[in-house]
Amino acid sequence: MRNIFFKINKNIKINDILKCLKLKNSKINFKIDDIKDLDTATIRDITFFHSKKYLSAIKNTKAKFVLTHKRFKNILPKSVTPIEVNDVLLSVAKVTSIFYPDSLNDTFDENVYKIDKRKFVRLKVGQNVLVGKNVKIGKNCCIGHNTIIEQNVVIGDNCEIGSNVLIKNTIIGNNSIILDGAIIGKKGFGFFPGQKKNIRYPHIGSVIIGKDVEIGCNNTIDRGSLSNTIIGDGTFLDNQVHIAHNVKIGKNCIITAQVGFAGSSSIGNKVLIGGQAGISGHLKIGDNVQIGGGSGVIKNIPSNTKVMGYPAKNIRNFLKESKLND
Amino acid sequence: MRNIFFKINKNIKINDILKCLKLKNSKINFKIDDIKDLDTATIRDITFFHSKKYLSAIKNTKAKFVLTHKRFKNILPKSVTPIEVNDVLLSVAKVTSIFYPDSLNDTFDENVYKIDKRKFVRLKVGQNVLVGKNVKIGKNCCIGHNTIIEQNVVIGDNCEIGSNVLIKNTIIGNNSIILDGAIIGKKGFGFFPGQKKNIRYPHIGSVIIGKDVEIGCNNTIDRGSLSNTIIGDGTFLDNQVHIAHNVKIGKNCIITAQVGFAGSSSIGNKVLIGGQAGISGHLKIGDNVQIGGGSGVIKNIPSNTKVMGYPAKNIRNFLKESKLND
Amino acid sequence: MRNIFFKINKNIKINDILKCLKLKNSKINFKIDDIKDLDTATIRDITFFHSKKYLSAIKNTKAKFVLTHKRFKNILPKSVTPIEVNDVLLSVAKVTSIFYPDSLNDTFDENVYKIDKRKFVRLKVGQNVLVGKNVKIGKNCCIGHNTIIEQNVVIGDNCEIGSNVLIKNTIIGNNSIILDGAIIGKKGFGFFPGQKKNIRYPHIGSVIIGKDVEIGCNNTIDRGSLSNTIIGDGTFLDNQVHIAHNVKIGKNCIITAQVGFAGSSSIGNKVLIGGQAGISGHLKIGDNVQIGGGSGVIKNIPSNTKVMGYPAKNIRNFLKESKLND
Repeated sequence: MRNIFFKINKNIKINDILKCLKLKNSKINFKIDDIKDLDTATIRDITFFHSKKYLSAIKNTKAKFVLTHKRFKNILPKSVTPIEVNDVLLSVAKVTSIFYPDSLNDTFDENVYKIDKRKFVRLKVGQNVLVGKNVKIGKNCCIGHNTIIEQNVVIGDNCEIGSNVLIKNTIIGNNSIILDGAIIGKKGFGFFPGQKKNIRYPHIGSVIIGKDVEIGCNNTIDRGSLSNTIIGDGTFLDNQVHIAHNVKIGKNCIITAQVGFAGSSSIGNKVLIGGQAGISGHLKIGDNVQIGGGSGVIKNIPSNTKVMGYPAKNIRNFLKESKLND
Repeated sequence: MRNIFFKINKNIKINDILKCLKLKNSKINFKIDDIKDLDTATIRDITFFHSKKYLSAIKNTKAKFVLTHKRFKNILPKSVTPIEVNDVLLSVAKVTSIFYPDSLNDTFDENVYKIDKRKFVRLKVGQNVLVGKNVKIGKNCCIGHNTIIEQNVVIGDNCEIGSNVLIKNTIIGNNSIILDGAIIGKKGFGFFPGQKKNIRYPHIGSVIIGKDVEIGCNNTIDRGSLSNTIIGDGTFLDNQVHIAHNVKIGKNCIITAQVGFAGSSSIGNKVLIGGQAGISGHLKIGDNVQIGGGSGVIKNIPSNTKVMGYPAKNIRNFLKESKLND
Repeated sequence: MRNIFFKINKNIKINDILKCLKLKNSKINFKIDDIKDLDTATIRDITFFHSKKYLSAIKNTKAKFVLTHKRFKNILPKSVTPIEVNDVLLSVAKVTSIFYPDSLNDTFDENVYKIDKRKFVRLKVGQNVLVGKNVKIGKNCCIGHNTIIEQNVVIGDNCEIGSNVLIKNTIIGNNSIILDGAIIGKKGFGFFPGQKKNIRYPHIGSVIIGKDVEIGCNNTIDRGSLSNTIIGDGTFLDNQVHIAHNVKIGKNCIITAQVGFAGSSSIGNKVLIGGQAGISGHLKIGDNVQIGGGSGVIKNIPSNTKVMGYPAKNIRNFLKESKLND
């Protein structure tokens, strides 16, 4: 799928990449189309391998050039050409910035204008609503006062957007509701801590919100870095929820107030999460999981499990211990 | 008390209700005034009974028609006529929607206009302030920039409303302060999880804020479903507090930052709650209770008690165990 | 350093102070310049002593007049003249209010005007941006839509301010980023709980944000009471972080989403804090400390330590116990 939010630089050759990483030039100066993960890269893309967790993916990748560390040299398939770097993810960030020079820049959209509701079908709008270029809004939507919808955002039919909402780099399905004060689509909190300055990670992903979704007041939902942040169909989020970059939430989940998700976790379908629970980064939560309010989840949770506690454990053990200690 | 925020449909007869619930018509087609809880219903209202917790209330209710489940058939007083349904609360939601068709619709107030401060007494207003029809603002108030006050809201004398505030379905007493970015009076996070779609619960309650209250920045305070959300006189809330529908907070409480209350809990007077504590739903917290920061309260707490922990327990036990485990 | 945000009343004599505290007049009616803490007070200022923790400071203070309680009478150095009061901090609040009558008043800035970008150097601004009198903005900055910057605020070069941001009583260094919806510089949640009404504490401090800082979306950062709230150079804050009055955060810290700091804690350099962690008030956290997500820190933490848990403890103990209890 083409990235509708960030323009790609189409003139990158392999030597541009090597130069940016301060490596020696290649003899054959291939054109490279894009930087992608192992699964989605084609033969004309560059990809990266930074952990043995992705060993099966590297064996099946179609990409030829792979940013990697020399300690992985012996386990790479012969089909790929490794580009050895000291810090793989930092190199991914640098290479991404060449392809997507705008992705580091996350300032406001200068080219918004006061919305003209006659340009849309049966749109009900409040006062001082600003929209950017190429914004698509389906029929029968309403948008509250002072809301800002930046360029290229796509909103489905029958959606209700509240007041004081800010939406950028986001696609929203039909019949979804975004409540007042929500901020959706800014870059994630991703960077490499530096001795002098932190180096920001480019965020070229979007936020993809399904249909029949409800996003609560003052929620903050960050867009993805290389992949997208996803909220599945029928999922409801209460107020003051925070969702970091790359999080994928399944369908028909119920997430109550003040819950927070760290980056890159994936949540199954029909998951219920009680208020103020926190989900650490890079976890996998199965389907039909129930997480009690206030829990701190720091490991994967299989489907059909009820957990509670900090760290979260089987809810029966949590309640039994709580009684013993009471 | 008449509901000033939601218009009631005055032409509902018992057969309209039975039809909406897909039940057989009654022979005598009474007019029904309203749907109310057991305590406040009059003989002309319909009420509901869904748990033995309310056994004493059902014995004293003045209502004739009661939505209930057949398993309660034998414990109902003879004075009431049960209307048997499979899911009592879902039926309450459906019936409420007939009486209050607007209560499911929570979009922004289209009929706001730029405030004209000459219409109010000694009002100090910022720029871009929008107010709805029939908004009442007492004397000596001030309202910051970009704030939106929707129709029928009532604000007392000497109140200070910050900038970027959004208030709907709310009554505020004298001398109260609402700080910047607070969102007050939207519908609660109440619905019935459905196989295909969640069914939203109507919210016909208001937010009632007493006098001498302070509401912090970026707070979210939802209005009640059938009853009201209440913040008592002299209570102070710090920033980023979340208060769900139907919560009742007493007088002179101090609630510090990032505390969250799930729906329908009631909190006594002079309660102190430390930062980031969470209070589960449907609990009763007594007077003069002190809840330590970060606590997770999952059961009732009697008056004059200090608790801390997750789950919250007597603070001495919490601190003793913490030392043992250190 | 002169307070650029609050005008000081220059005509206060010692008898004005004694009168406000309902104490007997002094024979010699000195002029008093200001109220300051023990360390920064000069001979012409009044200061206060309310805890033995500050015994070494009182021995070195240059101030002559000290608000204190009679129980400290015997430990005060002879160089100071004690003014005995029943409640030291309440008296400090009252005296501060005489010097800074505007500091209790925290309403919006009435004298803002729509920004004229030609008055600044290479400023990029959104729509409906309001700025107050004497606001200084460095070169190459950008400020998003609907943002409000109140009087006397100072913003360095190359700063990016998002949309819907509210900034008052704040000084921001070069190259810093303030993301959308942040509210910076309002008075802290400081007051004396009263039988009838709470008595608000004056907040004459500012928020001082260093250079290369990032402040996340919907953050709330309160200004200090007598001292300042400080965010050090290179520190990054994620979304929905709350920072109370007088908190000092060092350099190059990384504070993830939904973390909360209670008042007056000080945090060292290069501290990492995981999501939803809470730091109690008046604590000292050293350099290079790592605090796990969801932790509740209730005591001082020495430098170079990793902690996790509620209450937070050495992370190895936390993880060991978690396994035992699993």
